[in-house]
Amino acid sequence: MSRVTRRRQVTRYAAGTPRQRREDVVAVEEPLQIRLRAWSGEQRDLTTTMRTPGDDFDLVAGFLVGEGIVRRSADLATMRYCAGVDASGEQTYNVVDVTLTAGIPLPDSRIERQVTTTSACGICGTTSIDDVVKALPSDPLDEGTVSLDVLLGLPEALRAGQQVFERTGGVHAAGVFASGGERLVVREDVGRHNAVDKVVGWALRAERLPLAATVLQVSGRASFELVQKARLAGIPVLAAVGAPSSLAVELADQVGLTLVGFSRGHSLVAYTHERRIS
Amino acid sequence: MSRVTRRRQVTRYAAGTPRQRREDVVAVEEPLQIRLRAWSGEQRDLTTTMRTPGDDFDLVAGFLVGEGIVRRSADLATMRYCAGVDASGEQTYNVVDVTLTAGIPLPDSRIERQVTTTSACGICGTTSIDDVVKALPSDPLDEGTVSLDVLLGLPEALRAGQQVFERTGGVHAAGVFASGGERLVVREDVGRHNAVDKVVGWALRAERLPLAATVLQVSGRASFELVQKARLAGIPVLAAVGAPSSLAVELADQVGLTLVGFSRGHSLVAYTHERRIS
Repeated sequence: MSRVTRRRQVTRYAAGTPRQRREDVVAVEEPLQIRLRAWSGEQRDLTTTMRTPGDDFDLVAGFLVGEGIVRRSADLATMRYCAGVDASGEQTYNVVDVTLTAGIPLPDSRIERQVTTTSACGICGTTSIDDVVKALPSDPLDEGTVSLDVLLGLPEALRAGQQVFERTGGVHAAGVFASGGERLVVREDVGRHNAVDKVVGWALRAERLPLAATVLQVSGRASFELVQKARLAGIPVLAAVGAPSSLAVELADQVGLTLVGFSRGHSLVAYTHERRIS
Repeated sequence: MSRVTRRRQVTRYAAGTPRQRREDVVAVEEPLQIRLRAWSGEQRDLTTTMRTPGDDFDLVAGFLVGEGIVRRSADLATMRYCAGVDASGEQTYNVVDVTLTAGIPLPDSRIERQVTTTSACGICGTTSIDDVVKALPSDPLDEGTVSLDVLLGLPEALRAGQQVFERTGGVHAAGVFASGGERLVVREDVGRHNAVDKVVGWALRAERLPLAATVLQVSGRASFELVQKARLAGIPVLAAVGAPSSLAVELADQVGLTLVGFSRGHSLVAYTHERRIS
């Protein structure tokens, strides 16, 4: 039994026809806990995220890149599944323990952020973007171009690289493609952000960061966080099948990233820095 | 200028035709910070979420229901936008201060959860569901039925109730409908969970919780968290245009909720407790 999909008896109803019992395949969603340990031994529960099992180490590595905790493969000393068992005595493969290399610190404790109690308004669209931009790398993104034909073909190439969607219709995908259209990696997850973390984590572990001269193609919409993750991975072009949000457009504008939306095979819309489309 | 959508110059590319400069409308995404204060004066920064501005008090109220912090309108003493200004001297309407009624405690501090450092595996699919089920209300869900015809018509009725999607193609929607098909409320947001929080918050503020004899129709997929939010609001039927995840199906099964997926106008698939479909 695959851990990525699960079979289930369902009932299909259609107007004007008898209902029909049949077997259906659903995408698996399970929690993954990430626990972080510094070389000194200090440790912290970093996060628990709902994800589709599979490529867990890619997911964890990509998440750590997106949080600015690691930047290259050598920053990770070890990653392993927790050897313990759950209440029923089974190894769940739902907890990953990460040890950072000597010299790589744990992130600032969230505790400090939780107890902020100033009376000023802490955030707004503008200051929030400014803070994010400040935390992003300042080295310029690759300025190579990608042809319109290649870009228009990527949604189909992404779909062709998906394995779970075919069976469930229920997962998001992210793929990294070379500027010439060559597929480097495709990953799937019930969570849009997780799929992107998985491809970035793949690149980190394959020592391919920064991903210059590539396009990140995603199956859904383009949010602020996806632009942030693409920029941290050094990806110059982010293309989405769906719409971008306003903050995604503003951030892409500021960090010099080419943002494409509504990429539908026959047409697409460029929101920022269209100079990279040839 | 609406705060819900924003205009922007974009470039549209299509195979075989000249590129075209035009104005496009994007859905706005901005951070919203929720700050919580107990009647005693103790306060806490609860969360910051990215959302589409509009119906912010509904969003906040629904989020608090989903976290199990409030259960009825009277639990909320006041909700107001922070009166302060950002660095540029503008009121941002991106911070909401909530004061709880006397006797309603702040939630357990997240600080305790952050520093958990046991060596046992903390979670797995099973124990996680068990914990969630324990935290959910134990009063039974309404057992009234809804006709297949009404269910099949809800995706179209949801779409008809959307205002932002029409202009941007970029937002999710959630709607609560009476069993007879009458539309009670529709809300939109760039975030799937936010749209659901907004309809639940509307219900809380209108003193309509629990939402017996209703269907929650959502535009996207059905995740674990949406099932949890529906159950907390007392909604007996959750219908999604997209696919459900495995954990959504398992949770719906355990809490007695009817879960429908792939609701596409002409057909739909029932995953759990189909007895409510007549």
